[in-house]
Amino acid sequence: MITPIRPSSPRKPEEPVRQESLRTINLELVFRHILAAANPISRTELAAATGLTRPTITRIVEELLAGRLITEAGLTHDGRAGRPRVGLTLSGKGPAGLGLDIRADGLAACVVDLTGTVRHLAFAPSTYADRDAGAVLFDLARMADAAIDTIGTEDLTVVTATLAVPGPVDGGLVRSAPSLGWRNVDAGALLHSAIQHLELPVAVDNEANLAALGELYASHNTLNSFVYVSGGLAIGAGIVLDGQLMRGTRGWSGELGHVTVHPDGTPCPCGSRGCLQTYASLEAILGGDPVPAGTTPDATATARADAGDPATLAALDTAGTALGIALSGMLNILDIDTVLLGGSFALLSSWLTANVRTQIDRRVHTAAWAPITVRPALLGPDAAVIGAALTSIDQIRQRPAAWLVDEPLDVVPKP
Amino acid sequence: MITPIRPSSPRKPEEPVRQESLRTINLELVFRHILAAANPISRTELAAATGLTRPTITRIVEELLAGRLITEAGLTHDGRAGRPRVGLTLSGKGPAGLGLDIRADGLAACVVDLTGTVRHLAFAPSTYADRDAGAVLFDLARMADAAIDTIGTEDLTVVTATLAVPGPVDGGLVRSAPSLGWRNVDAGALLHSAIQHLELPVAVDNEANLAALGELYASHNTLNSFVYVSGGLAIGAGIVLDGQLMRGTRGWSGELGHVTVHPDGTPCPCGSRGCLQTYASLEAILGGDPVPAGTTPDATATARADAGDPATLAALDTAGTALGIALSGMLNILDIDTVLLGGSFALLSSWLTANVRTQIDRRVHTAAWAPITVRPALLGPDAAVIGAALTSIDQIRQRPAAWLVDEPLDVVPKP
Repeated sequence: MITPIRPSSPRKPEEPVRQESLRTINLELVFRHILAAANPISRTELAAATGLTRPTITRIVEELLAGRLITEAGLTHDGRAGRPRVGLTLSGKGPAGLGLDIRADGLAACVVDLTGTVRHLAFAPSTYADRDAGAVLFDLARMADAAIDTIGTEDLTVVTATLAVPGPVDGGLVRSAPSLGWRNVDAGALLHSAIQHLELPVAVDNEANLAALGELYASHNTLNSFVYVSGGLAIGAGIVLDGQLMRGTRGWSGELGHVTVHPDGTPCPCGSRGCLQTYASLEAILGGDPVPAGTTPDATATARADAGDPATLAALDTAGTALGIALSGMLNILDIDTVLLGGSFALLSSWLTANVRTQIDRRVHTAAWAPITVRPALLGPDAAVIGAALTSIDQIRQRPAAWLVDEPLDVVPKP
Repeated sequence: MITPIRPSSPRKPEEPVRQESLRTINLELVFRHILAAANPISRTELAAATGLTRPTITRIVEELLAGRLITEAGLTHDGRAGRPRVGLTLSGKGPAGLGLDIRADGLAACVVDLTGTVRHLAFAPSTYADRDAGAVLFDLARMADAAIDTIGTEDLTVVTATLAVPGPVDGGLVRSAPSLGWRNVDAGALLHSAIQHLELPVAVDNEANLAALGELYASHNTLNSFVYVSGGLAIGAGIVLDGQLMRGTRGWSGELGHVTVHPDGTPCPCGSRGCLQTYASLEAILGGDPVPAGTTPDATATARADAGDPATLAALDTAGTALGIALSGMLNILDIDTVLLGGSFALLSSWLTANVRTQIDRRVHTAAWAPITVRPALLGPDAAVIGAALTSIDQIRQRPAAWLVDEPLDVVPKP
């Protein structure tokens, strides 16, 4: 009988609708209908769905075809009697997005096309303890150049690159990424100048944020609100609420690794005590034992746990409980009912999930009447690089008209 | 040189812009310009600001005047030579919003007009331990009726009521409000049927959320993102991010009172251990000592602290530290840089703030380079009831056209 009001503050005054913006509005309207359609959609269906006239649809479709944003995909039946019609769908040629990731175990590059299909995925093992940011980003720039050249032979044009890094980011500046030994590294500028394709805009973002976006896209909109927790050398979280990444005021949300679990606990390099990081990072789970040459920290932890190593199992027990306590606080604050365990936590989830669930059931106030789901993430260790590539192509999905008129994208181009 | 991309998922397909909705769009556009203007604005200025023609402006202004949404406010100069013009501003007559609050110390009612001015504010002391929800809501309905009658003599029409309650809300249902002894109370339906003005829609919302909205409006948009923490018999938080209340997926965000501070700490009635509630509620600060008759828990705690009572000062020390630990986790998750201490925490802030700051400086990862502001809230104990009334009137601010054509508001009317 009563429904709650969902107020929002008054919108800012906007411009009135004028003729030239109507043209863009209608083009983007048609494009979004093609984007949202599960199957190829005919011009007739587009006219019915949008309420636009058939000549307007014809003109817009010609523009989208010429710009390689859409393609004709054979004949389709629209459910009524009559001859089959030509179906329209997103193009696998034309604009593409590049993603780059600096992972605990190495460097990754990914290209996706406008349909969201991964067209290129490359990985190269790397360590960071002995190398400076410039050297690491130089290697990554070579992978970017190789990806752009390869994909160019398939009629795809990379329009923008997004770099994933494990720490809070400020514009192109990485404020603090202890697992790489970075502090105030201008990764955006360094990468931008090292890539040979000089006009390519480069954005930098937090890897947990980008991985969460990767999971959001990969779920095909079946997940609307969730917390993605990225385990590894660093622990971070990406928050998706109502289909949108919640970045916070400066893009630094989800610093779960430095949420306090035990106020008087182990000192953390960040200067605090009892941070989740000190109980549940890969370093904590490995207990300071060296990782054998030729393997990765993830693989070592999994192998030891599989072999029933008592110290590793005890460390995973502690890690799962600590992760559950920190996550409970997060869920009490955010009111989100789904947790995806990503990165190392995905690989180790069979040893972590039970303790995480126990803590959440005990400590999330609303769990008494509204249960919380905890499960491994879908994309595994590639979530961030795929999310980065999808974030790049999303520029075109959001503003197809900008691609057609060759407008500058929402990143500052090289001077 | 590089700016970050702020992606968002593809928008759902919308309807194209048609003639009849253009009329509403332009009316609301003009209204929002009047709403946003710091001073009365002339028809000429409106035409320049909106890009609409003078005859269109004239027609829309007539509609808004006839509907008592705006009023003429004397002559104004628009900065150029020539004769002064008639200024237009929001009306203090016409639609009004009603707010109702069940506070730790009593019941409150508030009416605001479209300008956001408080036109009526009433308070009646009340206790809850010995009375059921129906009796409390019956008293509150009498206060609502009195407010509606009083304000009616000033040419104001209450369009909707919003009730603030200390706990998570599900539609009109209060899931759990331990400080009132309520569990699964359909406060919306009970209040709706007890108010004599039978057609009045009633919404129910969490008091910390509404208080945060009150602070947002009261700041005149100088505060864009902040955490409002409400102290008292229960502890809750309202989160405002980019000028919007962040409600979570079901409206249950900000359950700060049940965030874990010490995992092995004091048992909490919620079933968990070491919740912030067990260290920083008024009950914890008063240490179980009875509150003298004729005074309130807030006043008792303040008086004891002022008198230098050692037990109270020690309890405030513990409360401030616990609050700082819980808030640090919240700020690490949300990336918000301003905390407003509200409710009892506002009254007690001089004994709490130093410890809160110490914990935040130590435990918020980004505080090392981006300091956090902690200060008392502006509206004091009236924040929630004023926020509730402003939430009610915001229905009209958001959809002025609905008021003009007498469309139903976004709440389900009485059958």
